Amino acid sequence: MTDVDYCVVGAGFAGLTAALRLKQAGRSVTVLEARDRLGGRTFTETRDDGVWIDRGGAWIGPGQDRVHALMTEFGVPSYKQYTAGDAMMMVDGKKYRYQGTIPMTMSPWAVANLGTVFLELGELCKSIPLDAPWEAKRAAEWDRISLAKWLDDNVLSKPAHRLLEMAIAGCYTSAASEVSFLFVLYQMASGGGPGFVLGVKDAAQDSRPVGGMGAIYRPMAAELGRSVHLSQPVRTIAQDDGGVTVATDQLTVRARRVIVAVPLAVAGQIRYEPLLPVDRTFLHQRMPSGAILKIAVLYDEPFWRADGLSGQSAAPGSAAMVTIDAGTDAPRPGVLCVIVEGPRARELGRLTAAERRTAVVGALTERFGSAAAAPLDFVEQDWSAERYSGGGMLSHAPTGVLTEFGPALRAPCGRIHWAGTESSAVMCGWVDGAVRSGERAAREVVAADDLVGAGRG
Amino acid sequence: MTDVDYCVVGAGFAGLTAALRLKQAGRSVTVLEARDRLGGRTFTETRDDGVWIDRGGAWIGPGQDRVHALMTEFGVPSYKQYTAGDAMMMVDGKKYRYQGTIPMTMSPWAVANLGTVFLELGELCKSIPLDAPWEAKRAAEWDRISLAKWLDDNVLSKPAHRLLEMAIAGCYTSAASEVSFLFVLYQMASGGGPGFVLGVKDAAQDSRPVGGMGAIYRPMAAELGRSVHLSQPVRTIAQDDGGVTVATDQLTVRARRVIVAVPLAVAGQIRYEPLLPVDRTFLHQRMPSGAILKIAVLYDEPFWRADGLSGQSAAPGSAAMVTIDAGTDAPRPGVLCVIVEGPRARELGRLTAAERRTAVVGALTERFGSAAAAPLDFVEQDWSAERYSGGGMLSHAPTGVLTEFGPALRAPCGRIHWAGTESSAVMCGWVDGAVRSGERAAREVVAADDLVGAGRG
Repeated sequence: MTDVDYCVVGAGFAGLTAALRLKQAGRSVTVLEARDRLGGRTFTETRDDGVWIDRGGAWIGPGQDRVHALMTEFGVPSYKQYTAGDAMMMVDGKKYRYQGTIPMTMSPWAVANLGTVFLELGELCKSIPLDAPWEAKRAAEWDRISLAKWLDDNVLSKPAHRLLEMAIAGCYTSAASEVSFLFVLYQMASGGGPGFVLGVKDAAQDSRPVGGMGAIYRPMAAELGRSVHLSQPVRTIAQDDGGVTVATDQLTVRARRVIVAVPLAVAGQIRYEPLLPVDRTFLHQRMPSGAILKIAVLYDEPFWRADGLSGQSAAPGSAAMVTIDAGTDAPRPGVLCVIVEGPRARELGRLTAAERRTAVVGALTERFGSAAAAPLDFVEQDWSAERYSGGGMLSHAPTGVLTEFGPALRAPCGRIHWAGTESSAVMCGWVDGAVRSGERAAREVVAADDLVGAGRG
Repeated sequence: MTDVDYCVVGAGFAGLTAALRLKQAGRSVTVLEARDRLGGRTFTETRDDGVWIDRGGAWIGPGQDRVHALMTEFGVPSYKQYTAGDAMMMVDGKKYRYQGTIPMTMSPWAVANLGTVFLELGELCKSIPLDAPWEAKRAAEWDRISLAKWLDDNVLSKPAHRLLEMAIAGCYTSAASEVSFLFVLYQMASGGGPGFVLGVKDAAQDSRPVGGMGAIYRPMAAELGRSVHLSQPVRTIAQDDGGVTVATDQLTVRARRVIVAVPLAVAGQIRYEPLLPVDRTFLHQRMPSGAILKIAVLYDEPFWRADGLSGQSAAPGSAAMVTIDAGTDAPRPGVLCVIVEGPRARELGRLTAAERRTAVVGALTERFGSAAAAPLDFVEQDWSAERYSGGGMLSHAPTGVLTEFGPALRAPCGRIHWAGTESSAVMCGWVDGAVRSGERAAREVVAADDLVGAGRG
């Protein structure tokens, strides 16, 4: 039995940040992580040859001030995402090369559709109060249709529709029919609008930390030292008047309060004594994770750059649905990151590893030429197969959930407080949102104890 | 360690039926139930004075052949639901008395709306293939909108809209915005259409077993004898080439196969080794339970009958949202069953028991007169507060779920087979569907073992 001020469940960015801020405020803390590794929905693998690969969340962008603050704190520099050259789009058997976010080389009708929809989404996002999206004037209307329905009604060009469906539903690693349109607007708004979410330069994919996300989360964990316990899935959280008791199969932690910083569906697998309020229990049943395969394909060098290509490409339905240059700050090796999301990721996930590699490399070769045919390595991460991720990357809200249960996203349940990127009003869905949620939860527990006169400060 | 042919998780109607059929086929079986009682989402309390109360699922109707077969098997007679007299409807401050399913005393415009919508729903239901609703011609279209959106587009009379929203969303104990319209059509079609689902006489609320549901499930459990273990929540199910190992905190059962017969969200709290296929794991994250309060209010006698009232009433938003005469086959006491579902049930659930009683009895008194003001007893069941029900009464599918994950509802995962009313193509959502699912799962496991040459028969 360990006795500490606070217990934190989950050693992703939300949990590690909460624990770090508590430790810096002079509180004792224990972090319990179910996986045998740090990072949560980020996961940096550093190979024997020094090459590092982000197998999960990887990018940072402007406005993501709290993750930048952590980088400053730990002296982690960033480098710009490679964006020189053309992006490519394959849709309905046609191939387009273009620059920027919208493929202007598509038909004028498709381009006009895309442009209009971007403008419209941007306008709708402005009407969303980030702290309470369920209070938007048209919240009820938007929360009763899925993203798929909205696209059907608003995007008449077929290729534009296919493209937007892939790009937007991809953010939620799910089919467009599964995601509430209100949730889409909220999540986009929390990042500043569709241009930020779907863009690269000066947007959500603008830069990366040198060394990958692990370059940030490893020193955070190092500062927490032996307070962090891996391979300790939490089975029960019991609360009483005096505090909480958090139990894994091997450890029991007694604390004043606990911060649960894991995805919603995973939080729902913990047994709470007594039962949580109905709205929170129901939220755990209602915000599922999606399917995502993230594959790093390594080559001697980033050969596409010489062809005037950025490495960025999108092809709805393909085994290499989205690609992006994922080279490190070093010139070699070349790394193409292949991202497959939603229904297509579930299909690919059912293949054998060998079949999947053949399918993905085949698609890359068709797209980038024969130089793509013989990669040095093929490193795949299927987030759906990770028990304690529950899927990837962001839990989404189906229709009706934000308007019925939204306030339960952040409301503490007695001595149980909630973190995780889904609970952040700003940059919800990004690493920065996770960091913000951890800092908010840390402030919350300290303030709660100060209020009841049990604080130390 | 108990060694049996088959293990069944859950002692509701699905699990008990599966176990019974297996035992009758000469197989050994162990049933593990998490709650300290039998019945699952049915729950008959028999009081010291001999009065019995169904605190959960209660009614049976024509076409529900498999639950009727069980009743014949165990010699349980049925009696007709009391339907003489007028039903009442309170909507938008107006009160209507009427007979039948549609309140014909509302305005002609509202009545026309209701009639049209009933016809339309009935027609749409006919196009649903019950075994695979995701293959309906318009499945994709219907699975991208919620019930709320369809009602908005199709019911223009405001009182008709309020009424239908309450009545239909009530079936899923959720807000209309939460439920996929495809799921609504499927579930209605599985019972034979909207007239069956929402009707009383010759419909889903036609009759009740004498003695309540417990008069059926208790003798089933008695026949299974010591094979049924209560208060044994299953924590893990591990499968290997030779069989399955099912563990609770105290018991370990080794069997050839296991039938899991619990609600989807509850099935998702079991740890499966190895992980289930992604589509099944995701289904567990995606079919939530709803909120329902079911309250039996007992009076000396059913005084409303003398006033020419059937006891059936509906009032959207009221603390006594729906009422129905729930008297036993004896003339006394009078029992009004109050059912409150969805968002209103969550609101009422947050009150103290005393506040809730005041609100409900107040609403009944306003509706049925001063005789309603002083009940003999007030027996309430909040299904959301039951850990191992996970809510009530039927798990629903949000948009996108049936078209993406529907086939996972029944597909066995290796040696793990699935029962529960949600997995029944016929009478999905009723006790009869649960019985059918149990019989199907029992056939499934026996056939699987006969196929591999391990059968005994």
